[in-house]
Amino acid sequence: MEREVYMDYSATTFVKPEVLEAMNPYFTEYFGNPSSIYHISRMNKVIINKSKQKIADVINSRRDEIFFTSGGSEADNWALKGVAFANKDKGKHIITTTIEHHAILNTCKYLEKQGFDITYLKVDKDGFIDINELRDSIREDTILVSIMFANNEIGTIEPISEIGKLLNEKNILFHTDAVQAITHMPIDVKKMNIDMLSMSSHKFYGPKGMGALYIKKGTNIDNLIHGGGQERGLRAGTENVPGIVGMGFAIDIANKTMNEENKRLVILRDKLIDGLLKIPDSKLNGPRKNRLPGNVNVSFGGIDGDILLVILDDIGICASSGSACSAGAIEPSHVLTSIGVKSDYAKSSLRLTLGANTTDDEVKFVIDKITDTVEKLRKNKVEN
Amino acid sequence: MEREVYMDYSATTFVKPEVLEAMNPYFTEYFGNPSSIYHISRMNKVIINKSKQKIADVINSRRDEIFFTSGGSEADNWALKGVAFANKDKGKHIITTTIEHHAILNTCKYLEKQGFDITYLKVDKDGFIDINELRDSIREDTILVSIMFANNEIGTIEPISEIGKLLNEKNILFHTDAVQAITHMPIDVKKMNIDMLSMSSHKFYGPKGMGALYIKKGTNIDNLIHGGGQERGLRAGTENVPGIVGMGFAIDIANKTMNEENKRLVILRDKLIDGLLKIPDSKLNGPRKNRLPGNVNVSFGGIDGDILLVILDDIGICASSGSACSAGAIEPSHVLTSIGVKSDYAKSSLRLTLGANTTDDEVKFVIDKITDTVEKLRKNKVEN
Ligand SMILES: Cc1ncc(COP(=O)(O)O)c(C=O)c1O
Ligand SMILES: Cc1ncc(COP(=O)(O)O)c(C=O)c1O
Repeated sequence: MEREVYMDYSATTFVKPEVLEAMNPYFTEYFGNPSSIYHISRMNKVIINKSKQKIADVINSRRDEIFFTSGGSEADNWALKGVAFANKDKGKHIITTTIEHHAILNTCKYLEKQGFDITYLKVDKDGFIDINELRDSIREDTILVSIMFANNEIGTIEPISEIGKLLNEKNILFHTDAVQAITHMPIDVKKMNIDMLSMSSHKFYGPKGMGALYIKKGTNIDNLIHGGGQERGLRAGTENVPGIVGMGFAIDIANKTMNEENKRLVILRDKLIDGLLKIPDSKLNGPRKNRLPGNVNVSFGGIDGDILLVILDDIGICASSGSACSAGAIEPSHVLTSIGVKSDYAKSSLRLTLGANTTDDEVKFVIDKITDTVEKLRKNKVEN
Repeated sequence: MEREVYMDYSATTFVKPEVLEAMNPYFTEYFGNPSSIYHISRMNKVIINKSKQKIADVINSRRDEIFFTSGGSEADNWALKGVAFANKDKGKHIITTTIEHHAILNTCKYLEKQGFDITYLKVDKDGFIDINELRDSIREDTILVSIMFANNEIGTIEPISEIGKLLNEKNILFHTDAVQAITHMPIDVKKMNIDMLSMSSHKFYGPKGMGALYIKKGTNIDNLIHGGGQERGLRAGTENVPGIVGMGFAIDIANKTMNEENKRLVILRDKLIDGLLKIPDSKLNGPRKNRLPGNVNVSFGGIDGDILLVILDDIGICASSGSACSAGAIEPSHVLTSIGVKSDYAKSSLRLTLGANTTDDEVKFVIDKITDTVEKLRKNKVEN
């Protein structure tokens, strides 16, 4: 390995040292069960609320509209199943898109088996939904719309404010999977008319196994996890206090440095895109505008993305082909297929996502190495 | 505060320093998403399997029968809802007991709303179920029996082997909530004919927000959390690698020291029980035999348990009245009610649970302080 370059920040991030430091005392010293009444526990209750407030501040919600979960997948499952089952007497129609994360898509498939009817909105060649198509697909029995804030593979940022405005007029619940968006762009659930929003702590330098669902006050939703009275009876289970502390610290830091960091990342991202597009027969997947600051996704004609990944790993470059969660699957990514990328180009795609430790030097290194590798792979192919 | 004495180990435990040490590198250094293909991720996959093996060894299951969850509540919800929905065409009858944890009871209430029929077995004055009653309550359409291994309030250890034998003969799935039992007694899911078993890491000096469900190979169960392909497609969500490492280390340590530690705790427990029963008008709740090694639950006639708790907290003693998860509720504990404790005695109950740091000296201190406090409270009552 020549050098270690991590370019898979959308798959997961390291925990920042100051975040881990904040968590540490809660493992060993202030370890009480927050449901008990004695001093350590009362202190834990205070610290949980502080963490909620930090999250609420980032999305402009109320503190009591934040509910902790074990991650983005649980939050997505809860939002969809919770609303579906609680409102099934009002209607059984749900609208989503073809480019959602599997935590949404596979939950929708399950709901179909339970008798719900799902409309999957198509997206254009850059991954954007069409607001008119959304309007047309709304029915009398539509109870919920779930559209992701930003896509994890190609970085497309959906027109969330427009969607929220429409659904608010139509009085239909709006959930958005903001796992990739939060701390990378300003989010205001009030102005954007969002009723539910999923997030995951390990995407913004917080601990794994922690997430949250924002649920607007008054939303009719069933529990996903029943049991004790934690989270005001809506999500049972002894609270993961160190995780909660870490998530609060992490989101606060990420939000405070967001503007500055976005500017830096956009420059690096565009440099990386431009550098990779100099490689013959290469194509950018996803839009140039309204794209996540750290997302790069490029296809190289004739190249097997998974072989490219393995060679990059040997060099020391950590990247991803398709979404991390569906790595291992051999079919081309459902997102790339949805935006009309042909199967062979989809299979030759590489996702590089930038973050806190990415430098200009790393970007140059990665461009050089990928240019070389693609050239070599193509030469070998011709020679064999 | 005179002195800090923690006697609420059944509510939660601290994370042992060696467990935290094992977890630490996975937060900041080996932080990869286990679903990716590069070196950090491959290493994470190996470490996850190692942790599963440690858990499997403790209960004599296969490694691939262990599935990580966010805690005991998720494991309980998953077992019940997952089996209920997957097998609803075979039948809609489920049997449980009146003394289960709320993670079971409230899930059962939810399933009742979804059209399932639940039988709640009664227990005797010490909290034991009657195997004949269980046999009689089995019907043609019974798909699942869920009976806890050991009770969290009064420490009763149910006749799990007998139950498993019966259900195996009848070919009915058997789930047990072993959150309080595991690492406090030998468990062998094969010999005991257990099909599913829930556990929670923060009860045995592992991190909070981590648990596991053992699911016997071949069991027909739906996901509770749909999405990515983690846990062989049965439980979605990026794996909490540090949490998984911590849980594996913790269960291994607890299991290796179990016999020795149990002997020590039984002596301390019995000393505490005997000491408290010297207080006039005091009663032990739960059995003397087949009781969790660290569990003490005593009622003091005429005393308000919650006031007693507050005074003990001032002294520095951390204890609990009823179950930690239902603390805050004003009704008498459902467990004490189930074993026939009258409402006023139930409200005057105190649970003290012993663990790793409990000493003989602490036990003496606690007996003295409680004896004093109860006497003072009773005196004040008469004088007022
Ligand atoms: C018997 C029992 N089951 C389930 C649970 C729930 O575990 P957790 O709080 O880790 O979700 C507990 C914890 O209080 C318990 O004692
Ligand atoms: C858009 C999106 N939604 C949901 C998730 C699931 O989050 P987690 O793995 O934390 O459960 C991810 C993570 O890969 C994601 O990118």
